Amino acid sequence: MGDLEIRRATAGDIPAIVALLADDPLGARRESPDDPAPYLTAFERIAADPHQHLVVAVREDRVIGTLQLTVVPGLSRRGATRSIIEAVRIHADERGSGLGSRLIEWAVAESREQGCQLVQLTSDSTRTDAHRFYERLGFTASHVGFKLHL
Amino acid sequence: MGDLEIRRATAGDIPAIVALLADDPLGARRESPDDPAPYLTAFERIAADPHQHLVVAVREDRVIGTLQLTVVPGLSRRGATRSIIEAVRIHADERGSGLGSRLIEWAVAESREQGCQLVQLTSDSTRTDAHRFYERLGFTASHVGFKLHL
Repeated sequence: MGDLEIRRATAGDIPAIVALLADDPLGARRESPDDPAPYLTAFERIAADPHQHLVVAVREDRVIGTLQLTVVPGLSRRGATRSIIEAVRIHADERGSGLGSRLIEWAVAESREQGCQLVQLTSDSTRTDAHRFYERLGFTASHVGFKLHL
Repeated sequence: MGDLEIRRATAGDIPAIVALLADDPLGARRESPDDPAPYLTAFERIAADPHQHLVVAVREDRVIGTLQLTVVPGLSRRGATRSIIEAVRIHADERGSGLGSRLIEWAVAESREQGCQLVQLTSDSTRTDAHRFYERLGFTASHVGFKLHL
């Protein structure tokens, strides 16, 4: 296997990222890989926001993983800045390879670099394998995550 | 009782917001209301980020509530933008008055205004009253929230 690179996503990575988002038990119902327009518009919004860090993991020119990190300044916890990890996806061929850990370790290191004191994420209650994965990486399942669809 | 106003926080509101953050079973251990410097620095970071909406609820010139809304563009869910609610606090004298609902309703309306398709938040697992409150407002407790302190 070639070297793994974790780098900022470019517009050219969008189809591969959307394919990863759609290749997922929950994502399959939510995504429309054949209609790129809403993803292009969203990518422009992400690229224009300096607090967004959308990255891809690439090996031999193939996108095999992605995540998005958002840096959120705040007043609570003595003015702590926190980061939020969203949309973690690993290509089906790469699951169990340690790539998920590499991506989360990248996000934690980048969060330190950005001056964050806290990294947080939510995971659907049904993704019990993911919960064990995050606990192995040192995360604590201390919160309940609520969502409201508009 | 006078009229309630929900408005963007200014630097002059910081002491009142920090007092609300500290007057809380979990916040008491985390905040340092007598040392304003880190809060001022954090406020400048928040004010400089157009995706942050830190607001206060004010009645008769008194800050009685606060929350922070972050707008997060993303690729998943067909390029959905989501908002994240953090640091919701209601003055002890005002709990049970409906102010919490007013603040969350403000956040939901502002999220629509900002083009969000999803509002999300996490609540410490021990805050069971808060969980019932969010469920009454239509939120679903569908996720587990993980945190890692750096």
